[in-house]
Amino acid sequence: MTDFTEKTQALRERLAEISLLNSIGAALYWDQATYMPRGGAAWRGKQLAYLTQQAHARFTDPALGKLLDELMPYAERLPADSDEAALIRVTHREYQRAIKVPAELVAAISQHASESYQAWTVARPADDFARMQPYLERTLDLSCRYAECFAPYDHIADPLIDSSDYGMKAADIRAIFADLRAALVPLAQAITAQAPADDTFLHQHYAPELIERFTTDVIKRFGYDFERGRLDRTAHPFAIRLNHGDVRITTRYPKDTLSDPLFSTLHEAGHAMYEQGVKAEYEGTPLAGGTSAGVHESQSRLWENLVGRSYDFWEYFYPLLRSLFPEQLAQIELEQFYRAINKVERSLIRTEADEVTYNLHVMIRFDFELQLLEGSLRIADLPEAWHARYQADLGVRAPDDRDGVLQDVHWFSGLIGGAFQGYTLGNILGAQFYAKALSERPEIAEEIKRGTFSALHSWLQQNIYQHGSKYTAPELIARTVGRLDSAPYINYLRQKYGALYRL
Amino acid sequence: MTDFTEKTQALRERLAEISLLNSIGAALYWDQATYMPRGGAAWRGKQLAYLTQQAHARFTDPALGKLLDELMPYAERLPADSDEAALIRVTHREYQRAIKVPAELVAAISQHASESYQAWTVARPADDFARMQPYLERTLDLSCRYAECFAPYDHIADPLIDSSDYGMKAADIRAIFADLRAALVPLAQAITAQAPADDTFLHQHYAPELIERFTTDVIKRFGYDFERGRLDRTAHPFAIRLNHGDVRITTRYPKDTLSDPLFSTLHEAGHAMYEQGVKAEYEGTPLAGGTSAGVHESQSRLWENLVGRSYDFWEYFYPLLRSLFPEQLAQIELEQFYRAINKVERSLIRTEADEVTYNLHVMIRFDFELQLLEGSLRIADLPEAWHARYQADLGVRAPDDRDGVLQDVHWFSGLIGGAFQGYTLGNILGAQFYAKALSERPEIAEEIKRGTFSALHSWLQQNIYQHGSKYTAPELIARTVGRLDSAPYINYLRQKYGALYRL
Repeated sequence: MTDFTEKTQALRERLAEISLLNSIGAALYWDQATYMPRGGAAWRGKQLAYLTQQAHARFTDPALGKLLDELMPYAERLPADSDEAALIRVTHREYQRAIKVPAELVAAISQHASESYQAWTVARPADDFARMQPYLERTLDLSCRYAECFAPYDHIADPLIDSSDYGMKAADIRAIFADLRAALVPLAQAITAQAPADDTFLHQHYAPELIERFTTDVIKRFGYDFERGRLDRTAHPFAIRLNHGDVRITTRYPKDTLSDPLFSTLHEAGHAMYEQGVKAEYEGTPLAGGTSAGVHESQSRLWENLVGRSYDFWEYFYPLLRSLFPEQLAQIELEQFYRAINKVERSLIRTEADEVTYNLHVMIRFDFELQLLEGSLRIADLPEAWHARYQADLGVRAPDDRDGVLQDVHWFSGLIGGAFQGYTLGNILGAQFYAKALSERPEIAEEIKRGTFSALHSWLQQNIYQHGSKYTAPELIARTVGRLDSAPYINYLRQKYGALYRL
Repeated sequence: MTDFTEKTQALRERLAEISLLNSIGAALYWDQATYMPRGGAAWRGKQLAYLTQQAHARFTDPALGKLLDELMPYAERLPADSDEAALIRVTHREYQRAIKVPAELVAAISQHASESYQAWTVARPADDFARMQPYLERTLDLSCRYAECFAPYDHIADPLIDSSDYGMKAADIRAIFADLRAALVPLAQAITAQAPADDTFLHQHYAPELIERFTTDVIKRFGYDFERGRLDRTAHPFAIRLNHGDVRITTRYPKDTLSDPLFSTLHEAGHAMYEQGVKAEYEGTPLAGGTSAGVHESQSRLWENLVGRSYDFWEYFYPLLRSLFPEQLAQIELEQFYRAINKVERSLIRTEADEVTYNLHVMIRFDFELQLLEGSLRIADLPEAWHARYQADLGVRAPDDRDGVLQDVHWFSGLIGGAFQGYTLGNILGAQFYAKALSERPEIAEEIKRGTFSALHSWLQQNIYQHGSKYTAPELIARTVGRLDSAPYINYLRQKYGALYRL
C-alpha cells in the first residue's frame, strides 16, 4: 500500500467514526422532535451533549490535523474535481475552522443554546421578552467570542456568515440585498395598493390525514424516496439526514389552515431530496450533506415556490386536491385557488410570508444581526427597533413581542449572526438554478403540467444533489450558473406577480 | 473529600458514560423496530455495533476493575441494604462477568446475531430450515465458547442461565420444571378432553384504533405513565427502557384477532411499569433496570394473566370493550367472553398459548437448549426432534418448520441457552408475588372489580419495582416471598381452570 492510500484509509476511518457519532445525534434529535415523551427530555439533553462533545473531540484531534497536513500536498496534485482531493480539501478546511474555537467555548455555546431554547418555548407564548433578554445578551456575547476566534475579519459577522454560507461576507450580502430591496419594495407597494386576494376558504378545517395523503403523493412524484425516508409530525417542520439511506421530513397541521402543512411539506421535501441525492460513496465523510445554507434553501424554495406555487403545477394537481376536499373547495375555481395561495400582503410572520415580501422579513433580521454584533444596537432596544423597522418596511406593527422579536427560533437556540442570509440567498439561487434547468431541459414545463418531475429532478440530481459538499457554494454556482445574480429571481417575481395583479 | 467519596464519584462518572452509550443504543433500537425506513438498516447496524463496542470497552476497562477492587472493602462494611453498597457489589459482579469474555468473542456474537436475525426474517416465512442450519450451528458454537469462558461449571448451560437469571443453575430449573410438569400435564389432559371453548368471535375484524383506545385506558389505570412512555406499533412487541423518564412499549395488530394486541399490550405494560418504577436515583448505574429475566417476566405475566385474564377484571372492563365493538360483541355475554380468552388447547405457537399449556412449550425449548449444549442433539436433527416432542407433549404436529423450530426469534438472534427458562420462572414468581400482594392488601381484589389498581401497583412499586437491580433475584425473592415455589402458581391454575371446566 502506498503512503497516500494508507493515509487516506486512516483519514476515512477517523471520519467514519465522527460521522457515526453525528448521525446518532441526528437520530436522537429526530426522536426528540417527534415522538419522545416529555419525561425523556433531561436524559436526552445529556445524550446529545455527550455525542457532540465526543464528535468535536475527535474532529479536533491534532492527529487528524497532522494526517490532513500530510495529505494536502497529494490532494493538490490530484485533479481538482477528484473526489479524493475534495475529501481532503474540505476536511482540511473544516478542521482548520474547528480548531480555531476552544472546546470550552463550543461547550458553552451548546449548553447555552439548549437552556435558551427551553426558556424561549415558555417565554414566547407568554410574550415575555424580559425573560429572554439576559439569554439574548449572553447569546450575543458568545457570538462575538465565536467571531473573535477568526480575527482578523472585515466585519465581525463574517466568520458567522462564512460558517453557514462559505465564501460570503457581510459586504457582499449587503450589496445583493440592496439590489433586491430596490426591486421588491415597489413591487410590494404596487400589489398591496390593490384589493387583497380572497383566501378565506384556505382557513377552515382540512383533515390532516387527507392533506397528508395529498402531499405524500406530490412529493413521491417530485422524487422523494420513501424507502429512504419518512414523513412525521412535529411542532417546527424540518428535514434531517440520518444517513444516505434515511433522510426524514416532518411537518405540522395547525388548526384551520391548508397552506401551512401543504407548503411546509413540499419545502422540507426539497431539502430532503438534496440529501437523498448525495452520492452514496460520500457517506461517512464531510462530503455527505448539502454544501451551504443558501444552496440548501435554494432546493427547498425551488420545490415549494417555483414549482409548488406555480399555475402549471396546480393545473394538474388542483382537481386532485379538490376531490379530497369537495366540501371546502367545490365552489373554488383553479384561478381563485391560485390567487389565494399567492396572496401578497404586509404581514408579521416571516415563515408565513408570501414570495414578494418574504425577503423583506429576512433583511430586517440580517440588518439587526450586523447592528447587534457591531454594538450599534443593544439587546434591550431590540423589541422597539423591531416594531419601528416593521412599521417602516412592511407598514405593520405587531401587537406584542410574541409576533415581533420573539418569533424566530434562531437567535434563541444558536448564535446571532449568519442565521438568516441563507434564506434570501436560497430564493435567489433557486430562481437561477430553475432558469438554468428550464433552459437546458425545456420539457420540464410540459412535465409539470402532467404532474411529473423527472426531468427537473434529474437535472438537480446531476448538477446539485450528487455533489453534496464536494464543491463549496461558490464553486457549485460557478459550475452551474456562473455567478450569484438576483436578476432571474426578480424577473420571475415581476412576471408572475405582474400577471397575477395586472401590473 | 474522603477516599471513599472520591472513588465512588469516579465510579459513578464512568458508569454514567456507559449508561449514556447503552441508553443511546436503546433509543436507536426502538427507532429501528418502529419507524426507521428500510434504507436506514445498514447504517443503523454500524451505529449499534459501534455503541456496543464502545460501552463494552469502557465497562471492561481495567481501571474500572481497579476502582471496584478498591471500593469492595468499603462496600462490605456498609449495611447490606445500602444503595451505595449495592451499586459497588452489583457493578463488581457484572464487571467480573464481563471481563471473562474476550472482546473478540463479544463482537463475533453480536455480528453473528445480527446476520442470523436478518437471515431468519427471510427464512421463516419461506419455511427454509436448511438456510438457517449453518447459522444455528455457528450460534451453538459461539454459545459453547461463551459458556467455556466461565469454566468450571456443573452444566455447560449454567453460565448462560446465570447471565439472565442470576443464581439459577440447570439442575435447579430441571427440578422445578419436573414438579410443574407433573401438575400441568394431567390438568391439560382433563381440560382438552372436554369440548373446546368457542372463541370464533375473537377472530374477526377489530379496528386497531379502537383496540388501542381500550388498551391505552386500561394500562393508564394499571399505572403505566404516558408522560414517561408511549405506545407504538411494531412486528414483535417489546418494552424498552430508554431511561427513567422514557420507557416505551410496542404492540402489533395482526389481522382478525382481538386477543393478540389486547394481551400483548397488557404484557408489555407490565414490563414497562417495572422499569418506570425503578428509583430515579439509580439512573446512570447498573442498578437502573429489572433484576432478572424471570422477575421481569413475573411482572408482565402478572398484569397480562393474573389480572388481565381474570373474571373480576372483565366484570368491570367488558362493558367498556363491548361498547367499542357493538357489532362484534353484542351477542356475546361476559361468561362467554371470559371462557374464550381463557380457552385451553393443544397448540403450536408458544406466544399464543394459553396459561395451562404455555409452560409445556417453554420446557420443550429448555430441554433442547440443554441437549444441544451437551452435544446430545445435533442442529441437523432439531426439526425432527421438535416435531416428535410436540407430538409427545402436546399431541400436535406442525405442518412445517415455520411453525415448528423456526418460530421463536431467540436462537436466531442471540445465543442458545438461558433464553427460555425465564418465561416459566416468571409465571411461577408472578403467582407468588400476586398471592403475597393479595394477602397483604386484601383490597386489591375489590379494586380490580372497580377498574382501579392502585393497591396492587403500590405493593409492586414498594416491593419489586423501586429496587431495580439492587437485589439479585434470589435476594428479592427472599425479601418478599421467602423462596421460589411453584405451589401458588399450580393452585391458581387448578382453581381458575377447575372452576372454568368444572373439574
